[in-house]
Amino acid sequence: MTSGCINRPENRLRSLLHQLIFESDTKAGRTFNIILINIILISVTTALLDSVHSIRDRYGSLLLFLEWFFTILFTIEYGLRLYSLKQPLRYAISFYGIIDLLAIVPTYFSLVFPGGQYFLTFRIMRLLRIFRVLKLSEYLSEADVILTALMASRRKISVFLLTVLLLAVIMGSLIYVVEGEANGYTSIPTSIYWAIVTMTTVGYGDLAPQTAAGKMLASIIMMLGYAILAVPTGIVTVEISQASKKKVSTQACPACGAEGHDYDAKHCKYCGGRL
Amino acid sequence: MTSGCINRPENRLRSLLHQLIFESDTKAGRTFNIILINIILISVTTALLDSVHSIRDRYGSLLLFLEWFFTILFTIEYGLRLYSLKQPLRYAISFYGIIDLLAIVPTYFSLVFPGGQYFLTFRIMRLLRIFRVLKLSEYLSEADVILTALMASRRKISVFLLTVLLLAVIMGSLIYVVEGEANGYTSIPTSIYWAIVTMTTVGYGDLAPQTAAGKMLASIIMMLGYAILAVPTGIVTVEISQASKKKVSTQACPACGAEGHDYDAKHCKYCGGRL
Amino acid sequence: MTSGCINRPENRLRSLLHQLIFESDTKAGRTFNIILINIILISVTTALLDSVHSIRDRYGSLLLFLEWFFTILFTIEYGLRLYSLKQPLRYAISFYGIIDLLAIVPTYFSLVFPGGQYFLTFRIMRLLRIFRVLKLSEYLSEADVILTALMASRRKISVFLLTVLLLAVIMGSLIYVVEGEANGYTSIPTSIYWAIVTMTTVGYGDLAPQTAAGKMLASIIMMLGYAILAVPTGIVTVEISQASKKKVSTQACPACGAEGHDYDAKHCKYCGGRL
Amino acid sequence: MTSGCINRPENRLRSLLHQLIFESDTKAGRTFNIILINIILISVTTALLDSVHSIRDRYGSLLLFLEWFFTILFTIEYGLRLYSLKQPLRYAISFYGIIDLLAIVPTYFSLVFPGGQYFLTFRIMRLLRIFRVLKLSEYLSEADVILTALMASRRKISVFLLTVLLLAVIMGSLIYVVEGEANGYTSIPTSIYWAIVTMTTVGYGDLAPQTAAGKMLASIIMMLGYAILAVPTGIVTVEISQASKKKVSTQACPACGAEGHDYDAKHCKYCGGRL
Repeated sequence: MTSGCINRPENRLRSLLHQLIFESDTKAGRTFNIILINIILISVTTALLDSVHSIRDRYGSLLLFLEWFFTILFTIEYGLRLYSLKQPLRYAISFYGIIDLLAIVPTYFSLVFPGGQYFLTFRIMRLLRIFRVLKLSEYLSEADVILTALMASRRKISVFLLTVLLLAVIMGSLIYVVEGEANGYTSIPTSIYWAIVTMTTVGYGDLAPQTAAGKMLASIIMMLGYAILAVPTGIVTVEISQASKKKVSTQACPACGAEGHDYDAKHCKYCGGRL
Repeated sequence: MTSGCINRPENRLRSLLHQLIFESDTKAGRTFNIILINIILISVTTALLDSVHSIRDRYGSLLLFLEWFFTILFTIEYGLRLYSLKQPLRYAISFYGIIDLLAIVPTYFSLVFPGGQYFLTFRIMRLLRIFRVLKLSEYLSEADVILTALMASRRKISVFLLTVLLLAVIMGSLIYVVEGEANGYTSIPTSIYWAIVTMTTVGYGDLAPQTAAGKMLASIIMMLGYAILAVPTGIVTVEISQASKKKVSTQACPACGAEGHDYDAKHCKYCGGRL
Repeated sequence: MTSGCINRPENRLRSLLHQLIFESDTKAGRTFNIILINIILISVTTALLDSVHSIRDRYGSLLLFLEWFFTILFTIEYGLRLYSLKQPLRYAISFYGIIDLLAIVPTYFSLVFPGGQYFLTFRIMRLLRIFRVLKLSEYLSEADVILTALMASRRKISVFLLTVLLLAVIMGSLIYVVEGEANGYTSIPTSIYWAIVTMTTVGYGDLAPQTAAGKMLASIIMMLGYAILAVPTGIVTVEISQASKKKVSTQACPACGAEGHDYDAKHCKYCGGRL
Repeated sequence: MTSGCINRPENRLRSLLHQLIFESDTKAGRTFNIILINIILISVTTALLDSVHSIRDRYGSLLLFLEWFFTILFTIEYGLRLYSLKQPLRYAISFYGIIDLLAIVPTYFSLVFPGGQYFLTFRIMRLLRIFRVLKLSEYLSEADVILTALMASRRKISVFLLTVLLLAVIMGSLIYVVEGEANGYTSIPTSIYWAIVTMTTVGYGDLAPQTAAGKMLASIIMMLGYAILAVPTGIVTVEISQASKKKVSTQACPACGAEGHDYDAKHCKYCGGRL
């Protein structure tokens, strides 16, 4: 990733900045990134505290100053990131680039629309780079297993989500007719919301069936919901199991030294030698 | 599915209609079905909005018009479906046929019994054809895995449901005696409803134990309920795991043509021939 | 189980009764048991309705009559069961014998202690014989898988339950100190009850943290609780998986000794030898 | 662990004490430890009862006496433990040593800071030695399986927890903006707490969305939360499955067909044949 030609002073500055900001395996880069992560944590805490009435009343001006301080700091950092790269646009439209932009936009946004600063908490997304910075390659491979599992099961999960949605609409309509508006089920959308709250076993209790028929229907929904919700757990478990297994096989072929054989393999799948 | 003889003009019309409505792999059929799916979505949204008081008060007549408009549209479509088929009765008593009928009945029904129109949301079931229309054969095979898993475990789930029901009745009776009617447990059916709410970990909180003995009993039910409810998840997981494994094998035996071999199989399990 | 000597008339009566009551594979026995199951269902429904105020007020005397009618019926049946067996005591102390006794005791009990009749709902336990009666041997083997799984994991579950209990006590004490009696956490036992309600994700909401520190502690308990409660699901899943496997593949190849063949396999999938 | 030289009387006393307190496989040690466990249970019950207002009002002085009685008893025991060991410091900083200290500190602590005695319930941690005392080696190996599984998946769980935390912050901020302070979402930290309550499916209901947009967002969080929370269950299940397998192994001896060999076995443990 380092620049190939470092002849001109401008290029040297760029190269140094790139090393500092992007290359977390150098000592300077590592230090920079650890400081950055701490600043992110402090700035998110600031945004959280700013939303608490009693704290804002007492330390409002300090919090406003910190908000702008961190925003300007992150803006400069964002500019340097763009400057240090040969293809700044590529970074700007990358996952991390968009997150870095989202971390500074809300404060400027709040000048026009009050309340925009609450989105400053999105800065916490920047913490995702913690994995890259701390060289937690093992953590990344674990994250890979989870992601592979979720990716592999995305079609099953789509089918499942559509089923749940259909069921929620139907069950919501039924409870709306059974319980009626007098018992709090004021509309079908509200009733569908209740059905989702019930099927996911969240169960706030802001809405609860009052009539005997409603309670019976709710009981069926709960039992049904539980049975249905066992499905994603099952799907994800099986996928994680398969994603893990791919990693598991550790036997090397005695003939060619190749690895990655299944446990029940008797011959190397690459050279045919007896394992 | 296409008609074999297309000599008479009547037959040609029928064949064209069949192509349009049922054959989603032709360009015309695909367009027709995508339009249909959008109309279904809009009509369900109409039914949902119609149940919201504030919206019905303002746009009541528009919503009523749309309701009848979609119902007549779906009625015509239903008639054409029946007409385009050689064996209309077969379609009429099929899964999709019944759903298509249920999508139009409630509006006519509401003329006699007010409130019937709320069942218009059942139209959302028609979305199930989304899988067929969009040729999502992969999605269908995923749905197959889930269905196979649920089917294979239906007996285990029956045993499990009966156990939960017995436990709910017994625990409900116990809490009714322990807590009494003064604390909201007004009858045993209500207490059984509470037991189901608790065992499925929904926990609305509309009923909650007040006495020390009741809280102790509730704690036991929760722990017990959790242990018991781990069972369906386990059952479904194992079945999905087996249903997935069964899917994996795509190799046909070169000797006898049998399919369904495991990935690690080297010989056909039916004829013993080398794979 | 049939009597060997059927010479004397007394013995013949006994044998006939035994056939009627216990031998559900004979036509008479099957009919008797199906009628019995329906009577059990009706009598439990009676007991449920009797606990509903509005129904008891109107049909109280009818329900009281039915209660005694069913009790006397079940008492006669219990007597005949004892009479028809050669070793009545053995039945009396068996699982089903105790359930059959529990089904009649509460009514007599209620003469001395009012409220005893609510335990009549325990009669529902008699439904367990539904599996035996309907010859649902396949259901029984499924129940076996679940029971085997639960049995095999009973030690793991004991360890798990003790851990949860220790955690609940410690977390309950912490929240009691953090939230205090002013916020509803009136005693440590109550707080422990809250901790169990939270860790099992039931979440009634009759008690909920009010202070910032309490909410933070509750968040930790929830996350912790979820991680911990994933354990029984995992345990049960693994055990069901192993209990299922035992049923599936038990045949070893006579040629190479390999296992793991499907039920429908006719040849070893590893060496091709005839199974 | 027993002392090697038992010449001097001082050493003999030490050795005897060590046998009594630490060696639960001797008869005296076993008796001592069983008595100890019962005393622990009684003392924890005392601490629990002491926090209940109505009981403290009536039996306050008795409970205070018992509290000090058990504390002094445990203090003496702790002293004897230190005395009986050659390297008392090693015990003092061990897991069990710290728990034993925590069991006596709160009472003395309560002299300075009232309320400190509530931490006496931490004594229940001492029950962990129940596994060691009762020689439940099988239970310990089961605990090992669970611990191995949790250890093996600690990185996956870290990744998962960070993801949940990020999601909770973002979803909390969104609901704060959507619902606003008028509907109870008084600050972003409170809203994050609500997001965690919702995602873990606890759902107290002390906070629940009131607006249509809020309910829609909440529905998405619930569905999302459920999908995400299927992950730890999947992770733990797979790890338990692998931790269990390590004990079992699936390789059959090629000579005699016997199963149940360890993974690192090179010869069949039944016939000695090469695996």
